[in-house]
Amino acid sequence: MPAPSRSSRRAARKPRAAAPSTRKASKKASKKASKKASKKAAKKSSRKAARTPRYVFSFEMGRADGDRTRTELLGGKGANLAEMCALGLPVPAGFTISTEVCTAFYEGGRRYPDGLRDQVARALRRVERSLGRRFGDPQNPLLLSVRSGARVSMPGMMDTVLNLGLNRETVEGLAAQAGNERFAWDSYRRFIQMYADVVLGLKADGDHEFDPLTEEVEEALRKRGLKLESELSVDELRGLVDRFERIVRERTGKAFPQDPLDQLWGSIGAVFGSWNNPRAIAYRDIHGFDHDWGTAVNVMAMVFGNLGDDSGTGVAFTRDPATGERRFYGEFLRNAQGEDVVAGTRTPQPIEEMKEAFPRCYRELVRIQKLLEEHYRDMQDLEFTIERGRLYMLQTRNGKRTGFAAVRIATDMVRERRIDREEALARVEPSALDQLLKPVFDPAQLAAARRDGRVLTRALNAGPGAATGQLVFSPEAAVEAAREGRDTILVRVETSPEDIRGMQASQGFLTQRGGMTSHAALVARQMGKVCIAGAGDLHISYSRGTVTVGGRTLRAGDWISLDGFTGEVLEGQVATRDSDVMTALFGRGRAREKARKAPGFRAFQQLMKWSDAVRTLGVRTNADQPDQCEVARAFGAEGIGLCRTEHMFFEGAKIDHVRRMILAETLEERERALADLLPLQRRDFEGIFRVMAPLPVTIRTLDPPLHEFLPHEPEQVRELARTMGLSPDVLAEKIEALREANPMLGHRGCRLGISHPEITRMQARAIFEAACNVKKRLRRTVKLEIMIPLVGTRRELELQAGVVREAAAEVFARKKTKVPFLVGTMIELPRAALTAGEIAQEAEFFSFGTNDLTQTTLGTSRDDAGSFGALYLDLGVYPHDPFQSIDRDGVGRLVRIAAEEGRAARPDLKLGICGEHGGDPRSIALCDELGLDYVSASPHRLPVARLAAARAALASRSKR
Amino acid sequence: MPAPSRSSRRAARKPRAAAPSTRKASKKASKKASKKASKKAAKKSSRKAARTPRYVFSFEMGRADGDRTRTELLGGKGANLAEMCALGLPVPAGFTISTEVCTAFYEGGRRYPDGLRDQVARALRRVERSLGRRFGDPQNPLLLSVRSGARVSMPGMMDTVLNLGLNRETVEGLAAQAGNERFAWDSYRRFIQMYADVVLGLKADGDHEFDPLTEEVEEALRKRGLKLESELSVDELRGLVDRFERIVRERTGKAFPQDPLDQLWGSIGAVFGSWNNPRAIAYRDIHGFDHDWGTAVNVMAMVFGNLGDDSGTGVAFTRDPATGERRFYGEFLRNAQGEDVVAGTRTPQPIEEMKEAFPRCYRELVRIQKLLEEHYRDMQDLEFTIERGRLYMLQTRNGKRTGFAAVRIATDMVRERRIDREEALARVEPSALDQLLKPVFDPAQLAAARRDGRVLTRALNAGPGAATGQLVFSPEAAVEAAREGRDTILVRVETSPEDIRGMQASQGFLTQRGGMTSHAALVARQMGKVCIAGAGDLHISYSRGTVTVGGRTLRAGDWISLDGFTGEVLEGQVATRDSDVMTALFGRGRAREKARKAPGFRAFQQLMKWSDAVRTLGVRTNADQPDQCEVARAFGAEGIGLCRTEHMFFEGAKIDHVRRMILAETLEERERALADLLPLQRRDFEGIFRVMAPLPVTIRTLDPPLHEFLPHEPEQVRELARTMGLSPDVLAEKIEALREANPMLGHRGCRLGISHPEITRMQARAIFEAACNVKKRLRRTVKLEIMIPLVGTRRELELQAGVVREAAAEVFARKKTKVPFLVGTMIELPRAALTAGEIAQEAEFFSFGTNDLTQTTLGTSRDDAGSFGALYLDLGVYPHDPFQSIDRDGVGRLVRIAAEEGRAARPDLKLGICGEHGGDPRSIALCDELGLDYVSASPHRLPVARLAAARAALASRSKR
Repeated sequence: MPAPSRSSRRAARKPRAAAPSTRKASKKASKKASKKASKKAAKKSSRKAARTPRYVFSFEMGRADGDRTRTELLGGKGANLAEMCALGLPVPAGFTISTEVCTAFYEGGRRYPDGLRDQVARALRRVERSLGRRFGDPQNPLLLSVRSGARVSMPGMMDTVLNLGLNRETVEGLAAQAGNERFAWDSYRRFIQMYADVVLGLKADGDHEFDPLTEEVEEALRKRGLKLESELSVDELRGLVDRFERIVRERTGKAFPQDPLDQLWGSIGAVFGSWNNPRAIAYRDIHGFDHDWGTAVNVMAMVFGNLGDDSGTGVAFTRDPATGERRFYGEFLRNAQGEDVVAGTRTPQPIEEMKEAFPRCYRELVRIQKLLEEHYRDMQDLEFTIERGRLYMLQTRNGKRTGFAAVRIATDMVRERRIDREEALARVEPSALDQLLKPVFDPAQLAAARRDGRVLTRALNAGPGAATGQLVFSPEAAVEAAREGRDTILVRVETSPEDIRGMQASQGFLTQRGGMTSHAALVARQMGKVCIAGAGDLHISYSRGTVTVGGRTLRAGDWISLDGFTGEVLEGQVATRDSDVMTALFGRGRAREKARKAPGFRAFQQLMKWSDAVRTLGVRTNADQPDQCEVARAFGAEGIGLCRTEHMFFEGAKIDHVRRMILAETLEERERALADLLPLQRRDFEGIFRVMAPLPVTIRTLDPPLHEFLPHEPEQVRELARTMGLSPDVLAEKIEALREANPMLGHRGCRLGISHPEITRMQARAIFEAACNVKKRLRRTVKLEIMIPLVGTRRELELQAGVVREAAAEVFARKKTKVPFLVGTMIELPRAALTAGEIAQEAEFFSFGTNDLTQTTLGTSRDDAGSFGALYLDLGVYPHDPFQSIDRDGVGRLVRIAAEEGRAARPDLKLGICGEHGGDPRSIALCDELGLDYVSASPHRLPVARLAAARAALASRSKR
Repeated sequence: MPAPSRSSRRAARKPRAAAPSTRKASKKASKKASKKASKKAAKKSSRKAARTPRYVFSFEMGRADGDRTRTELLGGKGANLAEMCALGLPVPAGFTISTEVCTAFYEGGRRYPDGLRDQVARALRRVERSLGRRFGDPQNPLLLSVRSGARVSMPGMMDTVLNLGLNRETVEGLAAQAGNERFAWDSYRRFIQMYADVVLGLKADGDHEFDPLTEEVEEALRKRGLKLESELSVDELRGLVDRFERIVRERTGKAFPQDPLDQLWGSIGAVFGSWNNPRAIAYRDIHGFDHDWGTAVNVMAMVFGNLGDDSGTGVAFTRDPATGERRFYGEFLRNAQGEDVVAGTRTPQPIEEMKEAFPRCYRELVRIQKLLEEHYRDMQDLEFTIERGRLYMLQTRNGKRTGFAAVRIATDMVRERRIDREEALARVEPSALDQLLKPVFDPAQLAAARRDGRVLTRALNAGPGAATGQLVFSPEAAVEAAREGRDTILVRVETSPEDIRGMQASQGFLTQRGGMTSHAALVARQMGKVCIAGAGDLHISYSRGTVTVGGRTLRAGDWISLDGFTGEVLEGQVATRDSDVMTALFGRGRAREKARKAPGFRAFQQLMKWSDAVRTLGVRTNADQPDQCEVARAFGAEGIGLCRTEHMFFEGAKIDHVRRMILAETLEERERALADLLPLQRRDFEGIFRVMAPLPVTIRTLDPPLHEFLPHEPEQVRELARTMGLSPDVLAEKIEALREANPMLGHRGCRLGISHPEITRMQARAIFEAACNVKKRLRRTVKLEIMIPLVGTRRELELQAGVVREAAAEVFARKKTKVPFLVGTMIELPRAALTAGEIAQEAEFFSFGTNDLTQTTLGTSRDDAGSFGALYLDLGVYPHDPFQSIDRDGVGRLVRIAAEEGRAARPDLKLGICGEHGGDPRSIALCDELGLDYVSASPHRLPVARLAAARAALASRSKR
């Protein structure tokens, strides 16, 4: 689950529903308002009504101009309101101004289309008739809410105005109606505040924390030493309203509008205007929504849940949004408004208790929720208000749900014959599956920790799951602790390949630097570890063994917990447990048996089966250890798409030989070190091949710059110097000489193999010998695919392929057997993509290394993107993090060029992708579109990849 | 002049001409040989002769089958030999086997086409008749040379065999003929050695320094304590021949061939085989020559210049190849072979002295050289041999010449009405002009230094010219020395922008690391300084103030000289002086007047004038200082294509403000530092605009990573901490926090301006204010082009362009005037090129930053390419250094995409190139082809760019 964006957090602070109802009003104001409205209407309707299109769609219980199919015209909220009315559900009357008006408004230079005012006036009269109240009537005023509603939900992006229709006269009517003067004046006070903010644009300026009206409220509270606005008296509220009106006059040069129709048009204009506020524009850029869609405006009669104990408000779901269980689920609050449910100042009651509190309303609500789920064929999220014993439905929409619930609801609904399998696949976002595999926190302990303020910081949720352990600052300490059976969280400024053993030994990693595709993040996702990356506010001191964050200092050995779902770092221990899916696949004994019967696991298995039946893309894994291979096969891997040989180099004695090889002065010395490495590499490959045979295994020859294998801490350098019989100074100089200005663009990849063919030769021999050995022992073998990294020209591949083929011939002759193999290349440089037709002459397969291809195409090092990456997403420079989802226009275009020109040169060229994007649904859809043969993802991303591939196949099938 | 490649150095060690003539021979052997040949010929000719095409082209004085137009068929050497024969010049008879045979040889699986043997036999008979000798005749043997000859010269790439036709019998005949037994046996000895190497493939193996036959010679010399092979006696030579024959039998399993026809066909096969030896393949890859061209084989009768004092040999040019002066120029040696002229064991005499030594031959030679130059309409390089008083022409070809000579000869020949202006432009390689601008060493002193073994090492000739000065190891020392009026050479491991003042103060730079486009190289070419880069065998110790190279240790203050033409580093002082062109353009007083009349300068001016009349590409300069601008205008700049604002940041007090800006903790601190910088930047721009107005000036906003501006040496950090009132530790930490893993791909370019719009705003204000001020004062103004670097998306440009336009509006309003300006972008990331259609919506011009575009497209950091760059060129991975000439297939394709799609989106989009490639002729041709508007080059490259642009225009005109 991604960390909520700033905008959605902002949204959570906005009121959700609510509306006051009124009784009395002054006839004078009412007359004035309605006269004005009807005069205008009469003038225009006679001339235009027949000729102008319909812009305004009325709805009231039992009838509606629109329906749920018209979301493009009415927006999601408006269409669903219309639908509920047509179903005969109790919805406060209202009308929707269509998105076409928004479009026309912007196209016409912020002018409304002709005929709109007439249509609004007529719709307003209909609402008045339906409610038996009149807009602006001092005795019996109709109050309205005005809300935006685009065709897709853009939570908190646009503006809302409530309690519209109140003025100096109608407020008295409302007081009489409600029998509550304080309520009426507080409603008016809040209306002015909201209107001043949204419509009049009175914002905080200069040194002020709040906008000028909120400043006044704060000042009033301060004077009286109060904390809550609800403690202000009627007189104080009247005083505030006086001051508000004065400030509005001073700031805007005009009086606060007293005419309700002026208020209405002001609010409508503000909602349309909010479609193009900068944060809405950025939001659409990020989500790829069209700026031309426009928003609708929903105008609805206010109903109030806070008129006494016979009133209330609530939110409900037709199934459990956390588990997916089929039961009516929700909360309500007596005598409250929607925002009270959200604000958390009072604790809501479970929905079942409504049975006693509002028995008639509860029965009706249960009937309605069944009807709506049946009708929409999906779990619904409902908002309702009870005003004086009468139930009003304010909203229905498809409910948000956890990954667990998404999978279960989708498969259950297939069983219930509400939807078919394809629909089920379409309903589950692939990323939802991630949750099903991760350890989870004990929910009660997590809630307690949050409540107790133990959240230290929040950063990038780079590796999902829950982890708790004792703080360690070095890989060695993690290994040591693991030996003693202690769980650890490894905290580093950033991680590097040398840390790999410590990373394996710890439960999770927390880094100060690096983004979603930093080394720590990549390793975490490949190992299935929890990782929170780029926590810039950490201050780590390795020497003191402390980390300081948010004013608190933790020491090595202190407990810390990482919520990889949300990116939260928590102080202290929070208990975790394996998910049902993980227990069912990898657990033991009774726990396993129990998990295999759990509805969550069965739903997961079902969905995977359907996915595999539908998808056309193959799914491989990125793995370089036998245990990773076993996990991958359990998750459905059809081969290895990327085996990074260098990861093996860090284990056990190997690293010493690797360092000897790198620091060798002569070819002979290097050959000796390589000779020592060969049997160890061979054993590694044998382990992998035994698990994977007879599936294909793609092995990449040595890729990273040699510098990465060398020690950098002075102590380690001294240690290595001792074992190599060198002076530490000489060794340090040698290490320094290998340092590069831009190692990403330096002496690495096939450049190493070309300057030192003996390294490639050793690796090729180890691979072929291992495959021959496994073939002899198991009587089956892997299909080898030897992959040359960082190729930019055909000639480089030619040189390295020569070395590989020579080694194959030599080993096969010696072993008197053969194994099938292909030689191909990574396409990870723009030049490789641009000359793919040439390179395909030599390559038997391409594997798109989109991590590096993204770095070079965008000219952005993923290690260094931290300093501007977040800003770039905020400013809409990239619609998504290009290291998470392939940048379609740049990198995607290169992949397309390479796929097309490669296939043109060699029609049977095998095409795959092995970058981190191979596990990203959006990128998988692109791979499907480009006709790639397979995607390769880390073991734990395979379920996501399988589902995403299925959805991509369905999407492209439906396009055809 | 570039450093000679390994291959051309190898070529220089090969014999150039020469051939023995013989008199007597044994009838038996002759009969046997001719019988065998005629039998074969008879058998085949009857069946095939009529049907087979002509493969063999005979030539002898007065008649020839071929002519000089047929270089594709006969190769350059063969065509010119035929031409000379047709002109009636004295050429030893011979024949050329055409390149078609080579092609057929490889296509037919190394088999000769039918009919070839017949044609060779017939041609051989014709040579025998012409010479009155017979091939293999023991009494009067004909000896032959066999040489390769492709359509273009590939010096030293392929093989040659001389003295062919010698065996145990004919050697005696040769001895009698020449009256010199030693000469005959030495010829035979050398023939066996050459044949064993070239044809039989006896190479050095394992621990041996030489091939086995040369080992024998060395052994023989060692035994007798001799140094020269010419000191060996006849008996010793006979003994050597015996041992040679034994070794050949042991190594090859066969006797050394005694049949001259076998020798001939063996040699022909070896020459054809050498077409595809690895170094020839690599050579063609590098020069872009087609592998299908094939080589011809030239078989010619041997003539000998070493038969006594009535014989001799020589090389001559029809004009002075160093200066271009119109005078017959050359050298000869009496009683010598061609290889003696080359070996330098004897000092040749000037050609004029031939007048006395060989009066008749000299007169004939003078006549011939005039005739040949007239005929070929170009300066000729001639080889000749005098055998017993008779002159033979062995070769003519267009002569190699210095840049000085190339310009003078081309313009002189137009004046002499031999060629037209276009031909003159086509004749001068643009890079030749480089030489005309550089300081030159005093020729005598340079020769002496080389003779005295003062060459310390040779590395990349990154900045041409000659420089001499005292060694300094720090920029500060260079500045200090300059203040005292001392010349210095700055020696650094590598240079960085902080060193810029020291670089300006010194005469030349020598670096241990970095390639042709390293910082040192770029700055050198922009400043016109001498630079030798990437001298890996330097050992520099800053602390001791020493540099050790080739066993010698120099200290600070020692004299050192850099030959930037050849890449040689010389110990001690070698006097330099300005070239005529530089003196004429920038000198003072009488020296200037004299230089302006010098033929070299006048030829240069003439050529530039013709270039400007022809070219369609505009030519701008990369400059960021008023003095550079003045130089650029003198060299014909039509504007500035790239003004790097950051170069200015290092001067004077500016760097302090820059550092304060970078290290600011708050926006206010940063704004204060920027406010201090603004007037200083404005003054810089005013200086530039005053020189450049009314031409266009393209200014790039801040580009490099901020880290580059910060000090790194502990002492400097302490100093800065003091001035900033910070603790050195805190400052060091701040500096460290700005360090990036891959700065090239990090927080730089527009990413800086987007995260800190206040920097862009300050720069834009400084630019516009400066332009307005200059406009008011001079009543003319530059056409501003503000260029945003490292853009990858349209949105980035949009954001930065907004800041620039806002600053413009603000300044124009304040100054009550306006200046014309465009806002555009660098295209230096693959993504920018791939989305150029989008970006062009926002950009008013594109400037291709091909340095960075090459780095990202190829995934190669130019700073780190040193470790594999040379190897890559050797292995033919890239045909040229992609940082020197645009990589056509990769980078070039991106430029094409961007140009086409950018222009499609905005037809009036201005397109230029500002990478270092803007001064490279091959890249300029590509720019012309792609329809760019201009190229931009460093001031000293402008003449090259103007000529290259003219040649490109002519080439594309001729294609149309």
